[in-house]
Amino acid sequence: MKARTAKETLSITTKVVLPNDTNTLGNLFGGELLAWMDVIASVSAHRHCKRVVVTASVNNVSFRKPIKHASIVTLEAKVSRAFNSSMEVFVDVYVEDPVTGKREKSNEAIYTFVAVDQNGGAIQVPELIPETEKEKVRYEGALRRKQLALILAGKMDPSEATELKKLFLGD
Amino acid sequence: MKARTAKETLSITTKVVLPNDTNTLGNLFGGELLAWMDVIASVSAHRHCKRVVVTASVNNVSFRKPIKHASIVTLEAKVSRAFNSSMEVFVDVYVEDPVTGKREKSNEAIYTFVAVDQNGGAIQVPELIPETEKEKVRYEGALRRKQLALILAGKMDPSEATELKKLFLGD
Amino acid sequence: MKARTAKETLSITTKVVLPNDTNTLGNLFGGELLAWMDVIASVSAHRHCKRVVVTASVNNVSFRKPIKHASIVTLEAKVSRAFNSSMEVFVDVYVEDPVTGKREKSNEAIYTFVAVDQNGGAIQVPELIPETEKEKVRYEGALRRKQLALILAGKMDPSEATELKKLFLGD
Amino acid sequence: MKARTAKETLSITTKVVLPNDTNTLGNLFGGELLAWMDVIASVSAHRHCKRVVVTASVNNVSFRKPIKHASIVTLEAKVSRAFNSSMEVFVDVYVEDPVTGKREKSNEAIYTFVAVDQNGGAIQVPELIPETEKEKVRYEGALRRKQLALILAGKMDPSEATELKKLFLGD
Amino acid sequence: MKARTAKETLSITTKVVLPNDTNTLGNLFGGELLAWMDVIASVSAHRHCKRVVVTASVNNVSFRKPIKHASIVTLEAKVSRAFNSSMEVFVDVYVEDPVTGKREKSNEAIYTFVAVDQNGGAIQVPELIPETEKEKVRYEGALRRKQLALILAGKMDPSEATELKKLFLGD
Amino acid sequence: MKARTAKETLSITTKVVLPNDTNTLGNLFGGELLAWMDVIASVSAHRHCKRVVVTASVNNVSFRKPIKHASIVTLEAKVSRAFNSSMEVFVDVYVEDPVTGKREKSNEAIYTFVAVDQNGGAIQVPELIPETEKEKVRYEGALRRKQLALILAGKMDPSEATELKKLFLGD
Repeated sequence: MKARTAKETLSITTKVVLPNDTNTLGNLFGGELLAWMDVIASVSAHRHCKRVVVTASVNNVSFRKPIKHASIVTLEAKVSRAFNSSMEVFVDVYVEDPVTGKREKSNEAIYTFVAVDQNGGAIQVPELIPETEKEKVRYEGALRRKQLALILAGKMDPSEATELKKLFLGD
Repeated sequence: MKARTAKETLSITTKVVLPNDTNTLGNLFGGELLAWMDVIASVSAHRHCKRVVVTASVNNVSFRKPIKHASIVTLEAKVSRAFNSSMEVFVDVYVEDPVTGKREKSNEAIYTFVAVDQNGGAIQVPELIPETEKEKVRYEGALRRKQLALILAGKMDPSEATELKKLFLGD
Repeated sequence: MKARTAKETLSITTKVVLPNDTNTLGNLFGGELLAWMDVIASVSAHRHCKRVVVTASVNNVSFRKPIKHASIVTLEAKVSRAFNSSMEVFVDVYVEDPVTGKREKSNEAIYTFVAVDQNGGAIQVPELIPETEKEKVRYEGALRRKQLALILAGKMDPSEATELKKLFLGD
Repeated sequence: MKARTAKETLSITTKVVLPNDTNTLGNLFGGELLAWMDVIASVSAHRHCKRVVVTASVNNVSFRKPIKHASIVTLEAKVSRAFNSSMEVFVDVYVEDPVTGKREKSNEAIYTFVAVDQNGGAIQVPELIPETEKEKVRYEGALRRKQLALILAGKMDPSEATELKKLFLGD
Repeated sequence: MKARTAKETLSITTKVVLPNDTNTLGNLFGGELLAWMDVIASVSAHRHCKRVVVTASVNNVSFRKPIKHASIVTLEAKVSRAFNSSMEVFVDVYVEDPVTGKREKSNEAIYTFVAVDQNGGAIQVPELIPETEKEKVRYEGALRRKQLALILAGKMDPSEATELKKLFLGD
Repeated sequence: MKARTAKETLSITTKVVLPNDTNTLGNLFGGELLAWMDVIASVSAHRHCKRVVVTASVNNVSFRKPIKHASIVTLEAKVSRAFNSSMEVFVDVYVEDPVTGKREKSNEAIYTFVAVDQNGGAIQVPELIPETEKEKVRYEGALRRKQLALILAGKMDPSEATELKKLFLGD
């Protein structure tokens, strides 16, 4: 199974915020954005493994700035690391200034997908090769996040979470 | 500002999974469920504070079992703890067996909302009073999760995260 | 076939009114509410009989007060009576005051569903047991409404509608 | 205020049944059809009075035959009678045989609309002039249905319902 | 295979413009109208040939006047000419003045559909008989438009486009 | 007003075909694709002029191959030429092979947009600079297509269409 670079998994989608996507303040609903991110992240995971993929978890999403009605929003998704049958995907969200066209980062999210066969059973995926500096940082962090998720789900003993312990204890 | 019990914030919604909500395996899309959870969680947060609320973050969602087309899905949201202007909300997702009617837990998610005024500025919310055993466990955990989110966002030094350190070091 | 209480069929859904659900006055479209009521009423009928159910008729719905954009709307459906293969379902609609949180009844509707097998043929359903005072009143009225529907459809002679005649003639 | 003929209010819409409009048997959901009928009936009421109209009630709808996925469905709405500020509208639903093209009546529904000003207050509408035999029959029946609705809503004493009593007592 | 008149293929749909269908100026999106026209044009083509039809091309659509939110829009589609397995369909779009009810033409579009069997292979369709003056003009123009499309697609040599050459050279 | 390169207007969106987007053969509806292309083309036109843009016309779209349910579809839009207040935009549509990931061109469309002020009046747009060979070919062809559209709309005499005449007469 041939390893794939992060770049090969880049998936982009540009959307326009419609009235139905907005709350009473006229800003994009968080839930709508969550659904958009899930779709483009799943495309990225699919491009990595060429199999049917299903969402396994949403690890962390924060909504820093409101996104206004009629905004042009671009989502860019890239696989950050592959484990056995799972892939961690980062989604970066940008909003364009309608006058200057300058785009500003609005959100960031981390989703995890699992590749499955036709019965829904997990199947192995290729390795992911990070190339840029940013890709490497995200690749490194993925292990720490995986340990954290396992601890929070009660599936790992904190004392075994070597990567995570460093955060609290130093090396 | 009068404190409110967790029970007063309970919000329920029952949905039927339609064809457009499903992937090629005929199961509910993760993104669709994320959007459903966001709406009912926002109703719960609103019932707590009676103000406009906006999604601040999705802290952790995992998708354990596929939910089939035509399933009857019930989402129950309850505020687990209130901080200054933010509210942590748990959403429990249940699916009904179409023959026995027995419902089984399918998912669990944690969302955080912020109460805002008409300009989008954060405003204070009442305290949350947990009553049942489960509500108390979730209330206690909320502080640990908040510290974790602050550390991950680089806004808190791990050494100050008293609650979280106990996980790794014991008391 | 085990009889079931009305309470066991209670089905609740809470919705937020979005821009696309509203007319030019900014109020919820009647048609949208009709569709929402149909879905939750079908869930209630399904919970009674555990079979696929299809809408047989809408007997009476009135729209007393406009429901504003962004309102939180709760629909509660309960089977009021079961006949051979059909179930009459009441849907009560409540709207929440955004400031006080007090909920007020906005609408009431009566739908009838039929349980069907995989070929669409009607199949028998269990009896419904009313328990509260309100459930009993609705249970009693169901027969009168059924006779009325049969007369209006030309399938019953008015002189045979014993329940209905009392309305006009007294006992 | 100039009276208008029923023919002038005729409103037609043709739809194709999509996957999302169907239940697990692959047939059109009752709720979806209710929403479609509401929209075209409101167009008909608008054509009668040229004012904003809102749904006041759904008086009777029955779903006789399942409508299959991909069917071509035509809805025809016509005002059957106007009262002070309200209009009764009939909607006839036809489905086309995909091979012969022969259309067959599938449903019939009666909706009532009220004309409102910008504050939602009821305003007067013109009279409706029935011309064909069928239009006259529906025009006559409208008074009987109105009395029935008032009785069911507890707003009229059955003894005053002159039109309706004839049904049970003969002339 | 029996020829069919243009009139037999007339297909009408009336729509109300909802908030989600509009751009930031509050007018109907071009893309939404394109989708509406495609559906009703496909119904018209189906009524001509009674087979599954798929869109082959959109030949020309112009958007002359903005259509406001809440407008009542009527689309009328009619087959203008049939070739071997393809049908050219005209869609005329009308908008109603909400006060006078007078309808005004807003758009015109030309779509081409192909009749296909269950494997997607093209199958023959009946001839189209134009009757009115307008139907005849559109029938005549169809050949010229077909030649033009073939030239633009590089599938016909301009020198063979006898109908089209007349436009530039005179007879 | 600063001229802009074609590359600066590139707009990309990736979509997954859902059940509701498909016809009875399980392929993407033409009308749905037309709406998708309109949105991404309008983003491209907006990126060129930084003003509100409205669809003026769809000049030619052909649907060569069916696109299957669950396909990953990528649309790429780029302005090909700017005239006074209008911009011609090309949309190229690609579909990915789910196993090899190889993408294949499926469709091509040409839309025209106009930049408008808040009253809907046309306003001037910057010039477009083509750079690659393909951009130059499309830039050159734009004038010919514009003349053709004017002739078809009866707004230009064929004898004045210098660019177009060359097609038929040679130079």
